[in-house]
Amino acid sequence: MQANFVLWGVHLRVVGICDSKSLLVASDVLTTELDDTTLTEVCLVKLKGSSLLTLGNSGQCKVFSNPEAMGKIIDVATLLGRSTGLAFIDCSASSETIGVLNQVVDLGCCVVMANKKPLTSSMEDYDKLLAYPRRIRHESTVGAGLPVIASLNRVLSCGDPVHHIIGSLSGTLGYVMSEVEDGKPFSQVVKSAKSRGYTEPDPRDDLSGMDVARKALILARLLGQRIDLDNIKVESLCPEEMGPNIMHVEDFLVNGLPLLDKGIQERVEKASSNGNVLRYVCVIEDSRCEVGIQELPKNSPLGRLRGSDNVLEISSRCYNQQPLVIQGAGAGNDTTAAGVLADILDIQDLFVRQ
Amino acid sequence: MQANFVLWGVHLRVVGICDSKSLLVASDVLTTELDDTTLTEVCLVKLKGSSLLTLGNSGQCKVFSNPEAMGKIIDVATLLGRSTGLAFIDCSASSETIGVLNQVVDLGCCVVMANKKPLTSSMEDYDKLLAYPRRIRHESTVGAGLPVIASLNRVLSCGDPVHHIIGSLSGTLGYVMSEVEDGKPFSQVVKSAKSRGYTEPDPRDDLSGMDVARKALILARLLGQRIDLDNIKVESLCPEEMGPNIMHVEDFLVNGLPLLDKGIQERVEKASSNGNVLRYVCVIEDSRCEVGIQELPKNSPLGRLRGSDNVLEISSRCYNQQPLVIQGAGAGNDTTAAGVLADILDIQDLFVRQ
Repeated sequence: MQANFVLWGVHLRVVGICDSKSLLVASDVLTTELDDTTLTEVCLVKLKGSSLLTLGNSGQCKVFSNPEAMGKIIDVATLLGRSTGLAFIDCSASSETIGVLNQVVDLGCCVVMANKKPLTSSMEDYDKLLAYPRRIRHESTVGAGLPVIASLNRVLSCGDPVHHIIGSLSGTLGYVMSEVEDGKPFSQVVKSAKSRGYTEPDPRDDLSGMDVARKALILARLLGQRIDLDNIKVESLCPEEMGPNIMHVEDFLVNGLPLLDKGIQERVEKASSNGNVLRYVCVIEDSRCEVGIQELPKNSPLGRLRGSDNVLEISSRCYNQQPLVIQGAGAGNDTTAAGVLADILDIQDLFVRQ
Repeated sequence: MQANFVLWGVHLRVVGICDSKSLLVASDVLTTELDDTTLTEVCLVKLKGSSLLTLGNSGQCKVFSNPEAMGKIIDVATLLGRSTGLAFIDCSASSETIGVLNQVVDLGCCVVMANKKPLTSSMEDYDKLLAYPRRIRHESTVGAGLPVIASLNRVLSCGDPVHHIIGSLSGTLGYVMSEVEDGKPFSQVVKSAKSRGYTEPDPRDDLSGMDVARKALILARLLGQRIDLDNIKVESLCPEEMGPNIMHVEDFLVNGLPLLDKGIQERVEKASSNGNVLRYVCVIEDSRCEVGIQELPKNSPLGRLRGSDNVLEISSRCYNQQPLVIQGAGAGNDTTAAGVLADILDIQDLFVRQ
């Protein structure tokens, strides 16, 4: 990130940066900002996996550690929230940001999230966070930078009732399901996905479906469903008796995973005999929100999906015969960052004098 | 359209409506608006194909005919442009709106267009219209309500360089090209498209490719190409000697069209022998902007396209291995109106007090 971010004449002032333990903030947030030198130092420190605390104070900026940092964040939000529409950007994967985000929203700040946790906590937290919906953007929580949330919001905003959403929102599971379709054993495909870096270090984090369930919850809540993560029917591709508390990851990969091959193979063959393929999808309609394997026509946008692309199909009054389809890379640092930046620019538009 | 348009708490004030010859305007645009009764009357009058002039003055509103109407429009824009961000909505298909749109932009008004003409006139007019780009929306000019422009603007705004755009942006030609792929004669497919209401009354208006060329020009200019309609290489599917100035439409359908069958059939077969299909597409990259038939892999998003859906593939730094794909119905009154309404709400967000 650059302080003097010049892009088609856009200048973004970065006044503070947090990591899990500390806050680096411009010496006077009203008049100064973190300059390029400081921001480059921050990048180097974080690339090494060190804490912002190692940077120390300078004329340019001050560093605060917890719990002092938290008070300082609220001070900055109070100063700049209502007056400038200061945006808080949450690119963590932590539930610990929920409290502070709810506070800064109350102080008039905008919030941009790549973090799914604040949107998939309790309905009470969700309602607090969305108290001023026009100040919230979170494109990169579903399908990374793919314009899924922006497009769905457009459909909803113009009063086109959404009947049905179905999507493949895990690049990992998308890859796995399209590879087993070719007759490769499930265990081999999962191991190959792991070696290509498509999976989490423990592939059971992907196979559990919980990441997809969080994305489904975000979409379902956008459509007005007042549900929690617990209300979603989630099909895990990893049986409970092979869970992380019972088996080590290496044990799972060598001894557990191959036991799943036959079941998957039988389902693939059954689907194929119906002219269908299996896809790991989320389905959202009316009060239904489900995540799991479904048999889908080979010749549908989801059935034709190959590799790790995400796909979302939206059916509505306007898109009733054929769905509105959005497809593309749904993971990766670049696309996630691009989605966050587009959100920041979009939301800051609301605060620029015309 | 309703005056008291209540949608998730949104109220849109409609203060005036134009047709080609006249303007109906609220009696005092500062304090009043066109009420539901008046707007319903307007709908009935226009459904019958009559002029707004038939409505006459009332306590609620006044009717002005040209040239007085034009002066009144500028008065309203002067009063409400800078103070409220008054939006002018152009759903015509006329070049005659260009002058007034350029004037109201100067007066601080927003502009929402479904009309392609103002964006595909000279670069001089384009630059005037886009003088304040944040006040302009035109989603429904390309692919009706499909979130093509919004998504492309997001990609561009976050500095993700677009390398290549390819799209099938004519439902009519999309239908024709996917039907001839099955071996049906071109002439028969065009006639069938006409009888289904997919084509313009004179199908040569579709076959000429000029509608696609205008959409391509809008996309190319968004990407920064400073070109005019004349600079686009357009392949017409109707040879000059069968043009509207030479043959009557009936003569063309009966005697002209069948002469084209053999040529198209040969191209379809040649493509098929390479494992490809033919699609009528726009291609935009670097300084290139072309519209015409291309041979494309059967297994690409465009190659798999069937029926009258539109598809746009965007390749960029973030979407380099697989493109970002947006697909769905790209024509129809409902989707076009939905796109216009989403644009209006989006742009009015900029003028609502936070």
